[in-house]
Amino acid sequence: MSERIHNFGAGPGVLPEPVLRQAQQDLWNIGGSGIGIMEHSHRGKLFDRVIHEAEALCREVGGVPDNYKVLFLQGGASLQFAMVPMNLLAQGRTADYLVTGVWSQKALKEAKLVGQTHVAFDGAENKFTRIPEAGQIRYSDNPVYVHLTTNNTIYGTQWRSEPDLPAGVPLVADTSSDMYSRPIDISRYGLIYAGAQKNLGPSGAVLVIMREDLADLAPNTLPAMLQYRTHVAEGSLYNTPNTWGIYFTGQVFKWIRDQGGLAAMATRNEAKARLLYDVIDGSGFYRGVADPGSRSLMNVCFRGPTEELEAKFCSEATRAGLDGLKGHRSAGGMRASIYNACPLASVEALAAFMKEFERVNG
Amino acid sequence: MSERIHNFGAGPGVLPEPVLRQAQQDLWNIGGSGIGIMEHSHRGKLFDRVIHEAEALCREVGGVPDNYKVLFLQGGASLQFAMVPMNLLAQGRTADYLVTGVWSQKALKEAKLVGQTHVAFDGAENKFTRIPEAGQIRYSDNPVYVHLTTNNTIYGTQWRSEPDLPAGVPLVADTSSDMYSRPIDISRYGLIYAGAQKNLGPSGAVLVIMREDLADLAPNTLPAMLQYRTHVAEGSLYNTPNTWGIYFTGQVFKWIRDQGGLAAMATRNEAKARLLYDVIDGSGFYRGVADPGSRSLMNVCFRGPTEELEAKFCSEATRAGLDGLKGHRSAGGMRASIYNACPLASVEALAAFMKEFERVNG
Repeated sequence: MSERIHNFGAGPGVLPEPVLRQAQQDLWNIGGSGIGIMEHSHRGKLFDRVIHEAEALCREVGGVPDNYKVLFLQGGASLQFAMVPMNLLAQGRTADYLVTGVWSQKALKEAKLVGQTHVAFDGAENKFTRIPEAGQIRYSDNPVYVHLTTNNTIYGTQWRSEPDLPAGVPLVADTSSDMYSRPIDISRYGLIYAGAQKNLGPSGAVLVIMREDLADLAPNTLPAMLQYRTHVAEGSLYNTPNTWGIYFTGQVFKWIRDQGGLAAMATRNEAKARLLYDVIDGSGFYRGVADPGSRSLMNVCFRGPTEELEAKFCSEATRAGLDGLKGHRSAGGMRASIYNACPLASVEALAAFMKEFERVNG
Repeated sequence: MSERIHNFGAGPGVLPEPVLRQAQQDLWNIGGSGIGIMEHSHRGKLFDRVIHEAEALCREVGGVPDNYKVLFLQGGASLQFAMVPMNLLAQGRTADYLVTGVWSQKALKEAKLVGQTHVAFDGAENKFTRIPEAGQIRYSDNPVYVHLTTNNTIYGTQWRSEPDLPAGVPLVADTSSDMYSRPIDISRYGLIYAGAQKNLGPSGAVLVIMREDLADLAPNTLPAMLQYRTHVAEGSLYNTPNTWGIYFTGQVFKWIRDQGGLAAMATRNEAKARLLYDVIDGSGFYRGVADPGSRSLMNVCFRGPTEELEAKFCSEATRAGLDGLKGHRSAGGMRASIYNACPLASVEALAAFMKEFERVNG
């Protein structure tokens, strides 16, 4: 009953085992306090240490500049889809969206409820299999911000680097599915938000890193909970936060640091992804979903020769202890999500399974 | 290191030990799935069972009528302070607020940002030590809803029963600090919301129980995440929810049921509170903060003869393994929060400590 299987789920996804082991203890009694982490007051000394440590580790791991605020919020990236324009999209201005998948479409939809938007790139015509090249992006005149989704879980595409922006325009990024999976130059962004449930921790926790001047743009008529300035002013403790989520995310930051930081994560993640893409590319049986130049290191999406063989692949994989490989319902096929905490051994097991499945069924 | 102390914190507060023990296991591997509860997809079969069981137990324990929806949301009661008026307070209508403490003041403040409000009772003149009697409430003409806070953690007051309302007007209640601590007639409410971190589970999880017709009143221009209808339509799975919070809250519902349900919880909670109020009333040393007729069964707030003795009380109590007894910074004195999961043994230990402290210092 204590054995764990290989988990390729797209999120909530696999978490680092040492962090889970520590959390099992801390749930009952953290730091010898005689009280479990979830039972400590968010205003008490112990939790004060927990949240400050989480922020310090977030800053250390990501090299977060001093003029950026680190916020621990709730409601998933989906609430950020709305909070970003509610705070930043002033009347009379236009926000530009780079639409590279379902999640950017959803972000755009919420922005449209708030104000004027412009689609600077729309990947729908290519079924979201490509990240745009510079020449394919058309910004509006002086946008208030440019929004993108760094990694697209459904089609398995990922921006290799940030696009060039009009001078002085802040880049807003939903990094939910590749946050801290590789080095990131925070100073190139105005605001970054990430639901934790892929690389950072449990679902329900949301990390926001924002340039501090952007926190003051919201109209004061917004509800307090929806203004970034509220959370900046109160250090994410305006109301009772998701204390467990903050604790756990902090432990994951520590784990990332102890693994060697973001450069080491990137090396590991590249090696893991290469194993799978090499199987795909060396095969006449599987084919990748994303354009090779736009491939994600987090979500490896691929198809089999027929839908029948795809179904057989997934069910045999599950029986072999390789779970969560069914593609998103809107994309079909297979998807291996190999976030930070997915061990190399899991990816090796999958690569071997793929080759054997091809040998038998090819 | 595995020993736990007596925890009287006001919230996040003490959780049931059997639930914590189960959660330690499920964090690593739930139900023999080989995957921890936080690592399961919110769209997968296992989590589907978890959320449906949580809802079924919530309905069973609370006797939730069929025409009420049970939602598992995020953002604490503080986000509900805004969501309630954003969804229900139509233009040209007035929402009535019964202001019995800081939390109802905060709820009122958010409603004022949205539309017209009326204060049907304001307890500030009595320093929030009293719940109003019927004759002290003045409703506006045909309010769209009436809002109250069932229990006030800071001053230790609690509504004994629901006030009479103008015919057909829905009652909206913040029940964060006494939800499921006693039987509740859900049919007397239009909408109930409760941050989980007192009686129901971890902070970050929010329970909403609402009459289904009220979910359709929101303007469609609201962000999707802020419309109740979104969460009703998607069964709390519009986006990735706080899966851990839902799991844990479901386990607490099961624990409440196994303890004998809400009637048994009420009997236990009354006995626990009586122990402490009897010490207070039988002493010339301590005095209660709340009017006797308005006393809370959840938060027993009391003062000592001097602030020096109060400080001494709290520090000696902490050394004796009785933690979290310092009153809220805005009220001073002492506060013993004795939510559902606070064992009788903890309260007995506190009562004995109080008597001994009085004997030595009285």
